[in-house]
Amino acid sequence: MEKMKVNPYDVQGEVNYDRLISEFGIKSIDEKLLKRIEKIAGEVHPYLRREIFFAHRDLEKLLDSYEKGEKFFLYTGCGPSGPIHLGHYSIWSFVKWLQDKFDIELWFQFTDDEKFLYKNMTYDEIQEWTKENMKDVIAMGFNPKKTHFLIDTKHAGIIYPEAIKVAKKITFSTIRASFGFTDSNNIGSIFYTAMQTVPCFLPNILNNKNEYCLIPLGVDQDPHFRISRDVVGKLGHKKPVIMHAKFMSPLSGTTGKSSSSGNKTILMTDDAKTVKKKINKYAFSGGKETVEEHRKKGGDIEVDVACQWLKYFENDDKKLTEIYDKYSKGELLSGEVKAILIEKINKILSEHQKRRKNADKQFDKYLFKN
Amino acid sequence: MEKMKVNPYDVQGEVNYDRLISEFGIKSIDEKLLKRIEKIAGEVHPYLRREIFFAHRDLEKLLDSYEKGEKFFLYTGCGPSGPIHLGHYSIWSFVKWLQDKFDIELWFQFTDDEKFLYKNMTYDEIQEWTKENMKDVIAMGFNPKKTHFLIDTKHAGIIYPEAIKVAKKITFSTIRASFGFTDSNNIGSIFYTAMQTVPCFLPNILNNKNEYCLIPLGVDQDPHFRISRDVVGKLGHKKPVIMHAKFMSPLSGTTGKSSSSGNKTILMTDDAKTVKKKINKYAFSGGKETVEEHRKKGGDIEVDVACQWLKYFENDDKKLTEIYDKYSKGELLSGEVKAILIEKINKILSEHQKRRKNADKQFDKYLFKN
Repeated sequence: MEKMKVNPYDVQGEVNYDRLISEFGIKSIDEKLLKRIEKIAGEVHPYLRREIFFAHRDLEKLLDSYEKGEKFFLYTGCGPSGPIHLGHYSIWSFVKWLQDKFDIELWFQFTDDEKFLYKNMTYDEIQEWTKENMKDVIAMGFNPKKTHFLIDTKHAGIIYPEAIKVAKKITFSTIRASFGFTDSNNIGSIFYTAMQTVPCFLPNILNNKNEYCLIPLGVDQDPHFRISRDVVGKLGHKKPVIMHAKFMSPLSGTTGKSSSSGNKTILMTDDAKTVKKKINKYAFSGGKETVEEHRKKGGDIEVDVACQWLKYFENDDKKLTEIYDKYSKGELLSGEVKAILIEKINKILSEHQKRRKNADKQFDKYLFKN
Repeated sequence: MEKMKVNPYDVQGEVNYDRLISEFGIKSIDEKLLKRIEKIAGEVHPYLRREIFFAHRDLEKLLDSYEKGEKFFLYTGCGPSGPIHLGHYSIWSFVKWLQDKFDIELWFQFTDDEKFLYKNMTYDEIQEWTKENMKDVIAMGFNPKKTHFLIDTKHAGIIYPEAIKVAKKITFSTIRASFGFTDSNNIGSIFYTAMQTVPCFLPNILNNKNEYCLIPLGVDQDPHFRISRDVVGKLGHKKPVIMHAKFMSPLSGTTGKSSSSGNKTILMTDDAKTVKKKINKYAFSGGKETVEEHRKKGGDIEVDVACQWLKYFENDDKKLTEIYDKYSKGELLSGEVKAILIEKINKILSEHQKRRKNADKQFDKYLFKN
């Protein structure tokens, strides 16, 4: 078998999502489920139709309970150790869709402790990134009345007392097996998964409710929540429901996952010129060596990063199909597809950057107050 | 070599304190040091003269800095999973002496997280014990203006952000070696020593100072602070100074350490009748089989628990020497020494219980407010 590694601390090789479904023991999001969602939400988000969110745990149970009139809440987060990129944006724009369609509360955790414990960065550096990242999350336009930021170090007063209840039920053996840890791991990193588990049930404790928690996440985060689901159940709370997203590929090709380092992705703070340069220069092309050959044989959608990225940013199915069709036939050149993508992304970024400008004035509105 | 085990989670066998000094790499408190303390404090506490506090780390450095006009602060604590007994009382009465003589701040940590993580007890049970134990600590009569209670779960908001800085510098290997942990330990217990390290420097952070921290403790707690000293130094703070106490023996004999379980010790809440009964019935006697033999051969002070315990409660050296002398010669019977001890203890308990009565009304005065 090929070398594939998917956990929160390591994604390597070409990711085979069918294999992940069977290895992780998760379920694919099928037609039947899509129809249920459409019936409730009035529409199906393109990321669902396009299998970007491709798998889940217990989503049926959540929908059953929603149809009986029970609300649920959303939980997602951000590890603040670098700039926000389009990979984050895509997940969060789906989260925003869920919040808007279902009119529900969103708990947003900034795992500054995790990043401090895992990265070779100072506490102050992480705090700076926390502020920067908060601006981007605010710029996403989440409903401020229904969105609550939890910063692990700032909200430790409410998170830690619950985290020890979680931690008491997790042995080092379990952590070792799930994350591939060794005796050289620092004791904070070993404890950390307990902190990440708490928002799965904290809102219910604070509000004296028993709602389902829905966590849309990149599939690499699943090992955290596999442990969480087990423990949260043992503590007498509802197991969190998960929706798993595929990785947005790096610009360099369809292997691994998008990250903030180097020229592998587009940052939310990149200007129009930078976006144009990055995509034209670094986005792996599925086109042929020469224009003549391309016109004759057509391009390869599957490995062309611009084509793949358009799945995230061209919401119109008809238009997307047309682009794919023309590119396959050689009617569209790689540079032309890239130009379409650049325009789409720059529009998104320009609006995001406008909203981001004075976002720090809104910190107080979003930070959870107990 | 005999089987001796001394760490925070296990004390076994007859404790050889000379061997501990060399194994732990600590220094004995010698005549020279006692004279320095006497010069500064105006007197030497009987526990120092009697080698109950028998060893230290860096006490000279602390005295050097004190003589230059720099203050230091005290840090001690309590793991709330059962009633307070005379073993705790003896350590804390020494802490009170230090606070009074040096007129300094005391930070008192209630490690409710530790007890929850290590004991087969519920969170609520531990919270109940925390309240009960706080009453006893207040009844000790510490200066309320200079004493600050930290409860790990209540003050996690200020402790956890510092604890992760500590944790980042401690690997599981270190914890495994220091406490004899295994892969089956829960991840909270593995992290916990970081929480216990924070009060070594937190007061300096809160008050923007750089004072020495002095920790008087039972020598079994030393492994925690060996790690703490190492890390606290690396974080740029002064290494905490330690004073080590021998264990107050259980009633049953001079092996192991006093604990709240069974009839091994006297609880601070025991009434006069119970004290009398426990000591008369359970205190191991160094006397002879018959009165006649005892009168002839005398008793053995070293194994007689009443004689040993009097070291803690008969502050007058002359009187103590007289008792030991008469007991050795057979002039005093075991029952008579027990009677002296019972009277001493009941006087202490009666005063303690009076102060303890409305102590819960003073919680607010002692709890640290940030």
